[in-house]
Amino acid sequence: MKNIAILLILLPCLTFSQHEVMIKQIYDEALSNGRVYDDLRVLCKDIGNRLSGSPEAAAAVEYTKQLMESYGFDTVYLQPVMVPHWVRGKKEVVRAINSDKHGTFEMNALALGNSVGTGPEGVLAEVVEVSGIDEVNELGKKVEGKIVFYNGAMDPTIINTFGAYGGAVVQRASGASEAAKYGAKAIIIRSVTNRKDDIPHTGSLRYKALINQIPAVAISTNDADRLSQILQEQTLKVYIETHCKQLPDVLSHNVIGELRGSEFPDEIIAVGGHLDSWDVGEGAHDDGSGCIQAIEAVRLFKALDIKPKRTIRAVMWMNEENGVRGGQEYARVAKEKGENHIAALESDAGGFQPIGFSTTGSDQQKEQIKAWKDYFTPYRLWSFDQNGGGVDIGPLASHGTLLIGLRPSTQRYFIYHHTEEDVFEAVDQRELELGAASMSAMLYLLDQEGLN
Amino acid sequence: MKNIAILLILLPCLTFSQHEVMIKQIYDEALSNGRVYDDLRVLCKDIGNRLSGSPEAAAAVEYTKQLMESYGFDTVYLQPVMVPHWVRGKKEVVRAINSDKHGTFEMNALALGNSVGTGPEGVLAEVVEVSGIDEVNELGKKVEGKIVFYNGAMDPTIINTFGAYGGAVVQRASGASEAAKYGAKAIIIRSVTNRKDDIPHTGSLRYKALINQIPAVAISTNDADRLSQILQEQTLKVYIETHCKQLPDVLSHNVIGELRGSEFPDEIIAVGGHLDSWDVGEGAHDDGSGCIQAIEAVRLFKALDIKPKRTIRAVMWMNEENGVRGGQEYARVAKEKGENHIAALESDAGGFQPIGFSTTGSDQQKEQIKAWKDYFTPYRLWSFDQNGGGVDIGPLASHGTLLIGLRPSTQRYFIYHHTEEDVFEAVDQRELELGAASMSAMLYLLDQEGLN
Repeated sequence: MKNIAILLILLPCLTFSQHEVMIKQIYDEALSNGRVYDDLRVLCKDIGNRLSGSPEAAAAVEYTKQLMESYGFDTVYLQPVMVPHWVRGKKEVVRAINSDKHGTFEMNALALGNSVGTGPEGVLAEVVEVSGIDEVNELGKKVEGKIVFYNGAMDPTIINTFGAYGGAVVQRASGASEAAKYGAKAIIIRSVTNRKDDIPHTGSLRYKALINQIPAVAISTNDADRLSQILQEQTLKVYIETHCKQLPDVLSHNVIGELRGSEFPDEIIAVGGHLDSWDVGEGAHDDGSGCIQAIEAVRLFKALDIKPKRTIRAVMWMNEENGVRGGQEYARVAKEKGENHIAALESDAGGFQPIGFSTTGSDQQKEQIKAWKDYFTPYRLWSFDQNGGGVDIGPLASHGTLLIGLRPSTQRYFIYHHTEEDVFEAVDQRELELGAASMSAMLYLLDQEGLN
Repeated sequence: MKNIAILLILLPCLTFSQHEVMIKQIYDEALSNGRVYDDLRVLCKDIGNRLSGSPEAAAAVEYTKQLMESYGFDTVYLQPVMVPHWVRGKKEVVRAINSDKHGTFEMNALALGNSVGTGPEGVLAEVVEVSGIDEVNELGKKVEGKIVFYNGAMDPTIINTFGAYGGAVVQRASGASEAAKYGAKAIIIRSVTNRKDDIPHTGSLRYKALINQIPAVAISTNDADRLSQILQEQTLKVYIETHCKQLPDVLSHNVIGELRGSEFPDEIIAVGGHLDSWDVGEGAHDDGSGCIQAIEAVRLFKALDIKPKRTIRAVMWMNEENGVRGGQEYARVAKEKGENHIAALESDAGGFQPIGFSTTGSDQQKEQIKAWKDYFTPYRLWSFDQNGGGVDIGPLASHGTLLIGLRPSTQRYFIYHHTEEDVFEAVDQRELELGAASMSAMLYLLDQEGLN
């Protein structure tokens, strides 16, 4: 009896230690024999960027499906989803006309995703600079017939760069309709980045119903500074020409690969990222990293012969960037089938060094994740108390699913975000591997312990 | 009385809050109006690499002196120190001769710092591969007349990459003399990096007294893998030709700039990095970053009109890479003058995102630093319990000085370390700024609170 009592006291310790050992094996394997870096190279270099509806997006669907099959996942299949099909068309022109000091010059620009184009006739109008939407509302009809230039910058003093992004991105998302309300002809926005450089950043806008849809472009921060400088001294006309347009929706797919659970196969743990990217660069950090990390997180189970008790499902969601159709469809189908997703883990903040996990769920669920913090301390993850999750897993929240986001360090993220610079070379191998291993370790704990 | 009691209870909180406010100002200033990134660009791009004794090292002395003067430091002066003067000479040749599969081919190589050269006649000999020094001792006289190829790799599973570095670097530091004991003619080492690529990494070796000094080179990890592969299949001769040599010592300088303390001017807090670098790349992470961060840390006091109680001294130490003469001379002069250094803070682990501070000192001193951890939490520094400091401040330990090292994330450090890739572009602006601000905040706390 005495021995049994001692055993019972020791049991939690033994479990902790056993988990520690397995988690170390996961990290060791990822850092010694990891596939995530080479697999991401293929996605970025052989396929490249992959906006929803593009041939490259279809290639990425096929590639990740084949990849999961090659790693011997139990089931790999495609989930159909109709997605928007926006195309950029011919290179944008954003040209300042006859400025006093600089004459006529071209700016580094990208049309915003979902924007209508000006067509070949372009838009030529005087520019009015504003710091944000409030100022447009103050100006009201004074912007009629003008091009509104939103020059609000990301606040560099906010340490969480996503917080600073959130403060500035509203002018990209809503600025066009807000200016169109008062009769503006087009908008230009300062690229949403904390870097001063010549690189324009695209990203999606949303037109409001019943408001005239006007063209929208982003210019580089250096160009925004120059334009602002000129506007302090003179009035200026700018010519904008964009050829982008929204085509009819097309069929695309979420890509799903799973390891079937041995004890509780109906309890599903999803892990993934979004497979689509913007149509510039290679979508390396956003979000090729997250997709390939998710596949690696599951592959590590196979490599280490971990047989999950619950069903682990890697999901490459389609169309995060301009519609979230994949995430919505995934949740809809899950509900229709009566699937029980106990947790969903997304990596969509770049392939940088992981610093922790954010959560959205019940207090009890969140406490359970926080209680696992010590398992991750040896790997330098420390942040377990922030709210968060991911855009693609968001629709699962209403199912009672615990949402978990991998939190990487994001100081460098907005250099690359939605630009031609978001290429494979911007991703560090070890940082990427550490992220994949962290996701795998979190899956392991979720699988072993379940959720209370 | 009651009110006074309440005040006394509140006082520590008020102080905490006042410190919090000032530290936020420090970070805000560094992130909004920081100079560190632009100043580092000048050091890297206009001056470039700066091995001890080189004209570029002299230029770096003059540049950092002028920089501190331009920022209005109270006193800026040079401290003379004699330094070794090693020169690489003509590009190295490391050539595999008549291998069966690959024929004769060149490897990517750099002579190790302090190494003797082969001269124009070169060394041609059969290669013996070993995994480390133990194996050389086992082989003993079997390496006589041979070239010993040390192929020990950094362990990728060690999360602290400096730990993995420490495990592998011994063959670079001591491998030549250990092989020469048994009559080896030269050594080749696998570059000390966790990356598989074509970039050779230099770094210093130390010859043991009374042992024949033999030439030593590092080859890239890809070349090391290829060489090892060939040696599993056949014997192979390699030709090494290096033209490096040690010239007579030359006069150089530590560069010192200080803000004089208003209350306790005799209590000195030193902060710095090493100004010399290897003679490849631009010494951007190693350790231009640390030097310019130290200057920025003090400049932030000036910019925010913080008048220190104690004397804050920025020091650019000369010759960390191949002699540590600057650090030794600085400590010697401090002792001679009876200076009281209460603390010394060094940044010499790259300009990456800061994660905390390491310390070497009494338990009481270390506890005091740990107690300040919460001040840094908003800026994502969390590691305050590791031992450490810095090579250049090391000689101050015997003075009872508390040594503090800035700890950045080091997952990417050994990509660049001692290579042509360690250039300005490898440094991220925000990560560099966060490091400088963290150093400044630590100086601020040391200055305000002193040491118990």
